Amino acid sequence: MRKIPLLADLGDEDIARVKTELRYRHFPKRSVVLHKGGNADALLFLLSGQLQVIDVTEDGRAVGLRMLAAGDFFGEIALINGSTRSASVVATTEVLVAFLPASTALHLFSHSPSVARKMLGHLAQKIQRDSEFRALLSINNTSRRIFTYIALMPQVVDKDGKQVVENLPTHQDIANMINTSRETVTRALLTLVQQGVVQKEAHRLVILDPDALQRLAQGG
Amino acid sequence: MRKIPLLADLGDEDIARVKTELRYRHFPKRSVVLHKGGNADALLFLLSGQLQVIDVTEDGRAVGLRMLAAGDFFGEIALINGSTRSASVVATTEVLVAFLPASTALHLFSHSPSVARKMLGHLAQKIQRDSEFRALLSINNTSRRIFTYIALMPQVVDKDGKQVVENLPTHQDIANMINTSRETVTRALLTLVQQGVVQKEAHRLVILDPDALQRLAQGG
Repeated sequence: MRKIPLLADLGDEDIARVKTELRYRHFPKRSVVLHKGGNADALLFLLSGQLQVIDVTEDGRAVGLRMLAAGDFFGEIALINGSTRSASVVATTEVLVAFLPASTALHLFSHSPSVARKMLGHLAQKIQRDSEFRALLSINNTSRRIFTYIALMPQVVDKDGKQVVENLPTHQDIANMINTSRETVTRALLTLVQQGVVQKEAHRLVILDPDALQRLAQGG
Repeated sequence: MRKIPLLADLGDEDIARVKTELRYRHFPKRSVVLHKGGNADALLFLLSGQLQVIDVTEDGRAVGLRMLAAGDFFGEIALINGSTRSASVVATTEVLVAFLPASTALHLFSHSPSVARKMLGHLAQKIQRDSEFRALLSINNTSRRIFTYIALMPQVVDKDGKQVVENLPTHQDIANMINTSRETVTRALLTLVQQGVVQKEAHRLVILDPDALQRLAQGG
């Protein structure tokens, strides 16, 4: 359980209590782990495999919002707000998920300083990203909107020292998220490839020239 | 200090410590209390008067995001993230503001269960509203986008039992926030008035027929 960052700094007593209350469940690939609109009765942890958070827009388009990896928790917003689930979560591989009952999770959120600190940091970052995303949506030039979206995506440095966007959403998902067409996204990415700014690999994007990407995002 | 909801349930010891650390400052009307991009060295409380949170869009338009009233706190996101201020805050009346140093505020966030719970609830609600707002921006029909925006605004029941949106942003601010023109906002509001759905008063909007507003927002 020390592999779940949210719980890694819990005291032994808390760890023991959480252990007795966790319930585990396997889900096959393509099954729905959380249903939008459902009741929030637990905090969920992804222990192995990969999940995708999916929302459905006003006009019925499904949008893949983000991917979850082993060690991530999810379902915290509805739990804290006492509201229904605001998005669905779907398994993109076979997964193992742990469920922590709502009352125990909520008690930890306010009574464990390490959990409170991490949870606040998690939510505050989400708010900052939402606000960057909102600023992005107000960019009228479509190409600049796409370049800015790519520049804002979380990047990691892989084992070969390359700067990489992992789990790149499909062109259709990007298009749905930032209000444009799939064709426009494909064209903008092709421009980036032709100019040597990025390199496309399966489900990932290698950022070859981050400065050039920033300049294009700024409209330079 | 019991009038500040965030601190209302603190124990006497915490209250005493917070009291010795709070610093107070008066600001005249129209002064800038927080500067976008500035360093986050304190959590702020509005003790009297009214403030407006203002952001500047990519293309330089100033957008009035929301109003703050006496008892509200602000500036928590940059504090938690250790980042710079993400928006400016401007006094719309003469105001009295209290400053709680960052280290004390952050300690309270994780070590006072009542503060942790309220802060998490505050952030989770913000995230939920941001996600509703994101869904709203994906509505292509401009009139429906405006009707949905109005339906989503926080409403209170005033002393005469009327359902009211207080501190209605200007038509220009609404237009900037939801990517349309001031004229379109003015026209949509006029439609609502003519159909007897709302009634306009100074800086507020009385919702006469909430069901009709919902129907219009759904495109009915």
